[in-house]
Amino acid sequence: MATVDTMVEDIDFRRRWPGFDFRKLGRRLMTINLSDLAAMGATPRYALVSLALPRALSTWAIDRLYAGIAQQAQRFGCAIAGGDLSATRGPLTLTAAVFGDLPKGSRPLTRRGARAGWRIGVTGRLGSAAAGLKLLEGGRRPATPAERSWVRAQLEPVPRLEAAQILRRAGVRVAGDISDGLYREVEKIAEPAGLGAELWADELPIEASLGRCHGVAAWRLALFDSE
Amino acid sequence: MATVDTMVEDIDFRRRWPGFDFRKLGRRLMTINLSDLAAMGATPRYALVSLALPRALSTWAIDRLYAGIAQQAQRFGCAIAGGDLSATRGPLTLTAAVFGDLPKGSRPLTRRGARAGWRIGVTGRLGSAAAGLKLLEGGRRPATPAERSWVRAQLEPVPRLEAAQILRRAGVRVAGDISDGLYREVEKIAEPAGLGAELWADELPIEASLGRCHGVAAWRLALFDSE
Repeated sequence: MATVDTMVEDIDFRRRWPGFDFRKLGRRLMTINLSDLAAMGATPRYALVSLALPRALSTWAIDRLYAGIAQQAQRFGCAIAGGDLSATRGPLTLTAAVFGDLPKGSRPLTRRGARAGWRIGVTGRLGSAAAGLKLLEGGRRPATPAERSWVRAQLEPVPRLEAAQILRRAGVRVAGDISDGLYREVEKIAEPAGLGAELWADELPIEASLGRCHGVAAWRLALFDSE
Repeated sequence: MATVDTMVEDIDFRRRWPGFDFRKLGRRLMTINLSDLAAMGATPRYALVSLALPRALSTWAIDRLYAGIAQQAQRFGCAIAGGDLSATRGPLTLTAAVFGDLPKGSRPLTRRGARAGWRIGVTGRLGSAAAGLKLLEGGRRPATPAERSWVRAQLEPVPRLEAAQILRRAGVRVAGDISDGLYREVEKIAEPAGLGAELWADELPIEASLGRCHGVAAWRLALFDSE
């Protein structure tokens, strides 16, 4: 099993976000890829990292970026097997490819094969990452413990490798990650199977601290925004 | 065996080069990675491709880019196993990761383990790609068959997968690719082994059509420039 993901400055992150840190950025690069693997029920084994960086970037920043990458890789048992470093006249563009495997004889989780009548489940509490992004894009430093936890959910997401493996062992066959939002992911699973889906906004496991957030009902964040 | 490489617009290529074409660009993205694998004596199996593209890029251009990638991958027996597409406000930034394997029981070619007294060899004719780059950077369309062949060597290099496998079977153990130039590659092999190297400029297999090129002696291109 293999996955590749790229993060582009000013699209996926901004250096001027309050609390921005290159080490966190490195960790997040690994996390988005580890999450993709998790969604397949695979165990990460090794990674390749390719960074396109402006020449003006300090070696201090580059060191921290690599440290974050290495730290998150190690935490999830993934070896950095190689990489590439390029100059760019544009935004930081960070790519990682991660390879993993499945326990022998077991099948990966995929989006294919959903059947009519099945229940839809989701792990974790929804909406924090979206609320954190709104704070950051508003240029506001998080002021309360709740706000800090939202920003953390955006900047330092945790790949759900364990949850995926528990689900796989429990017999779940169809799954996806909700980095494009729950609504979009359900669509990706249901539509090719010729199915519709019902989601009940008041039954979504919304992060309790959200309440109403910046005038947007929390369930809208939970349903439509990236996790 | 795995390898990853990134090409950045205005660093590794320019859209305003005479004869620039997105299909060739896609082929070249695969080639630089296939060449890295070749340098290890491995056979390519599958690839992941991650492209960061400006929103203004036409779907026509994107189609051609993917077509070039697919074409070159297929030509060398490599399956495109997945990918990622990102928006960027900066230059096109194209990354491919390629995975390959070695025949059972055989060892990869590496830069490690050179011994004193060994001979240094190189495959192919040197200098064309560098001469082609000089033409392109000068904004001049190639006018003669020789000039066209130099530009082709720059824009459409051929990965030396077969040469690498012949060398491996012949018992060669230490090798590298000369995408940073022959001089630099010999340095990368010799220095960690605590060795020096002698290269004879008049024995380099220089592309005959080069003669003297733009006032730079051909052997300087052959020795120091990227192939």
